[in-house]
Amino acid sequence: MNIILLSGGSGQRLWPLSNDVRSKQFIRIFRTEKGELESMVQRVYRQIRTVDPEAKVTIATSKSQVSAIHNQLGSDVGICVEPCRRDTFPAVALAVAYLRDVRGVRESEPVVVCPVDPYVEEDYFQALKSLGERAALSEANLVLMGIEPTYPSAKYGYIIPKDKKNISKVSMFKEKPTEAAAADYIAQGALWNGGVFAFRLGYVMERVRQITGFADYDGLLEGYHSLEKISFDYGVVEHEPNIEVMGFSGMWKDLGTWNTLTEAMDGPNIGKAVFNEKCENVHVINELDVPVLCMGLKNMVVSASPEGILVSDKEQSSYIKPFVSEFDHKVMYAEKSWGSFRVLDVGKSSMTIKVTLNPGHRMNYHSHQYRDEVWTVVCGEGRTIIDGTEKQVAAGDVVTMAAGTWHMVIADTELQMIEVQLGKDISVYDKQKHEPIFC
Amino acid sequence: MNIILLSGGSGQRLWPLSNDVRSKQFIRIFRTEKGELESMVQRVYRQIRTVDPEAKVTIATSKSQVSAIHNQLGSDVGICVEPCRRDTFPAVALAVAYLRDVRGVRESEPVVVCPVDPYVEEDYFQALKSLGERAALSEANLVLMGIEPTYPSAKYGYIIPKDKKNISKVSMFKEKPTEAAAADYIAQGALWNGGVFAFRLGYVMERVRQITGFADYDGLLEGYHSLEKISFDYGVVEHEPNIEVMGFSGMWKDLGTWNTLTEAMDGPNIGKAVFNEKCENVHVINELDVPVLCMGLKNMVVSASPEGILVSDKEQSSYIKPFVSEFDHKVMYAEKSWGSFRVLDVGKSSMTIKVTLNPGHRMNYHSHQYRDEVWTVVCGEGRTIIDGTEKQVAAGDVVTMAAGTWHMVIADTELQMIEVQLGKDISVYDKQKHEPIFC
Repeated sequence: MNIILLSGGSGQRLWPLSNDVRSKQFIRIFRTEKGELESMVQRVYRQIRTVDPEAKVTIATSKSQVSAIHNQLGSDVGICVEPCRRDTFPAVALAVAYLRDVRGVRESEPVVVCPVDPYVEEDYFQALKSLGERAALSEANLVLMGIEPTYPSAKYGYIIPKDKKNISKVSMFKEKPTEAAAADYIAQGALWNGGVFAFRLGYVMERVRQITGFADYDGLLEGYHSLEKISFDYGVVEHEPNIEVMGFSGMWKDLGTWNTLTEAMDGPNIGKAVFNEKCENVHVINELDVPVLCMGLKNMVVSASPEGILVSDKEQSSYIKPFVSEFDHKVMYAEKSWGSFRVLDVGKSSMTIKVTLNPGHRMNYHSHQYRDEVWTVVCGEGRTIIDGTEKQVAAGDVVTMAAGTWHMVIADTELQMIEVQLGKDISVYDKQKHEPIFC
Repeated sequence: MNIILLSGGSGQRLWPLSNDVRSKQFIRIFRTEKGELESMVQRVYRQIRTVDPEAKVTIATSKSQVSAIHNQLGSDVGICVEPCRRDTFPAVALAVAYLRDVRGVRESEPVVVCPVDPYVEEDYFQALKSLGERAALSEANLVLMGIEPTYPSAKYGYIIPKDKKNISKVSMFKEKPTEAAAADYIAQGALWNGGVFAFRLGYVMERVRQITGFADYDGLLEGYHSLEKISFDYGVVEHEPNIEVMGFSGMWKDLGTWNTLTEAMDGPNIGKAVFNEKCENVHVINELDVPVLCMGLKNMVVSASPEGILVSDKEQSSYIKPFVSEFDHKVMYAEKSWGSFRVLDVGKSSMTIKVTLNPGHRMNYHSHQYRDEVWTVVCGEGRTIIDGTEKQVAAGDVVTMAAGTWHMVIADTELQMIEVQLGKDISVYDKQKHEPIFC
């Protein structure tokens, strides 16, 4: 199976766990059978591999998510990076061209496109496989997945099939109807549109050429910034008369808000939390090292991270977005391809962070124009390269770097350092990178 | 007026703002007319000074509170330090002996004893002055303050006067009756016992001699550990037939729980907090630098500090103690005589803290046997003394100190440093102090 996972989205609805560099799909919130925590993207990736160990998975995403994807899925996963944010049509176009021109998928082969964040079981990926197989054989140009609705929701799009067979031609689409209208559609056999579709690669490449004028990956990549912001639905699906829908009646949840997300938790808390006996239907997701004590709470969610603290009635939690937009969005925690960092303290002319490098990983070789830095290694072993000179470091070693100094660190074991940044107007943009030439 | 303020108490009921070194009286939670925040101890001290600028104030307390008292009230305040924790009788005995033998108060002079944490207005301290004046003249040996009850509480002690005059002989005491019994007592004119009493100094010194065998301050100090743990009520009041009570009908609140404390706040929050329009009767006290977002909360208190997060129904918040007892009580923030520190990160063999020294202040000259330390100055100017050598330091300077190195820092301006401690089993007990001989 060739599968493109669309990984987009900003992080406002699941604040404070999501932020500008950590969309909801990267929050480690689900407990695996082994008792470890995994994120939506890790869960989906694991499920695909279980159903189809040979699946060719490509994640279509933006630059800002690449580090987190490498951190969570390793460096072997296929990633197709948008040079800038457009919408789903350009993202799918680029990823399909990438599959053909970089990964060698033939134009006759089927491709399945799926969001990276549905909360589903393995039967869903079995259904994706069937969807791809159908797309390979069907005379239709697009085969959509239609999810059996569990209630007349006003927040989804509906696909209305021509007949009641499991695979049917599509009669029409209805985007976010009222609940009453939704109930009518469902009575007629309407299905939810979960944004999942399959096609033969050549079909989409031809549409891309017609719409954008670009015919291959390099062209699309170069002209990406000039592409119109348009969804795949509006750009392709709505203009295509020859579409099928295949029903799926298994478990499918859209965990877009705290309210829905906590329903998928296997216990009342992740992280340190204590509840008194008067608590009912309370979930705590606590990424801090200190405890959350809950007393007499009912139907609530509490979430704490280095970015802030949410305390919300569950139903109210879906209205979070406008409040979060007002906050100062300094990133306090981020996963990088080499590990993670957490901001410990922000001063007037300083910032202190804790840096954790995974064993065998390294930072980019870089320098800062306007700030000095001091590293104190607190744990592990590794090597620093400072202006070209390599040196062994271990817990207790201190490295001072004036502004302009080129520096990097390579972790031989897991390596933790306290980094104190000193300067006025400290910014992530004050960074020059180059590849080290000597190691 | 000679006044002894009893400053005791552990910090469990107002967790996470109070902790083992910060009892509730040190939490800065009240807004002054100037708009600044002050603690209970600062409020009471300011009120006493307003009513009686000449008042001789002595704070009877334990060693662990001395730094916080100096930090909040300056270094001029009289402090009588218990060598170890006993109960109120030994604490009062030591403070009374201190007043006579160290501060020169005569045996005929009246002394007023009062807890450090009532939430009151200035009329209360006018009443304390009258209480002292009465004690100087009265034939009674003890004059108690009796507070007019506002409801039949089961959690206070009651003083039942012989008659209804403002100053009356005491008929009997009733400790924490049922609410029904309390209502009966109140109908008979009973008053709350707020732990406030006055006496001529010589009377208590004589009782101290009879009970403990010690007759002066030095003797009490030396023999303090051998004194019985007994309250002043049980040790003295209950055995004294000649007691008066003086009524007080002004405002008096015992802010011992989050529920009562938030009633004294002048707005819904201290620190960063945002409330959506569905919140009702919610208070947030947030000592962290990041926001607390509250959505759809009713009758709740949220408090966040470096020690943890409390989210509680207000009524439930009075049952906090057993939960807090279970927590690991690592002190994450403390006020010291020279400034404050905050723990930023705790690693396996490291701890990172932010140290803030107030201008003109200095740490003790000290060393650690089992840990190395690294200071990175992030703000301000000062001088370090490292193994006897003084050096100017400013933002950006790094000082490394191997275990065994003697060190201190003197702040010429406000000085902030990131201190990384490195070693196994890092403990506050790993500290040797001596006074610097060269500065």
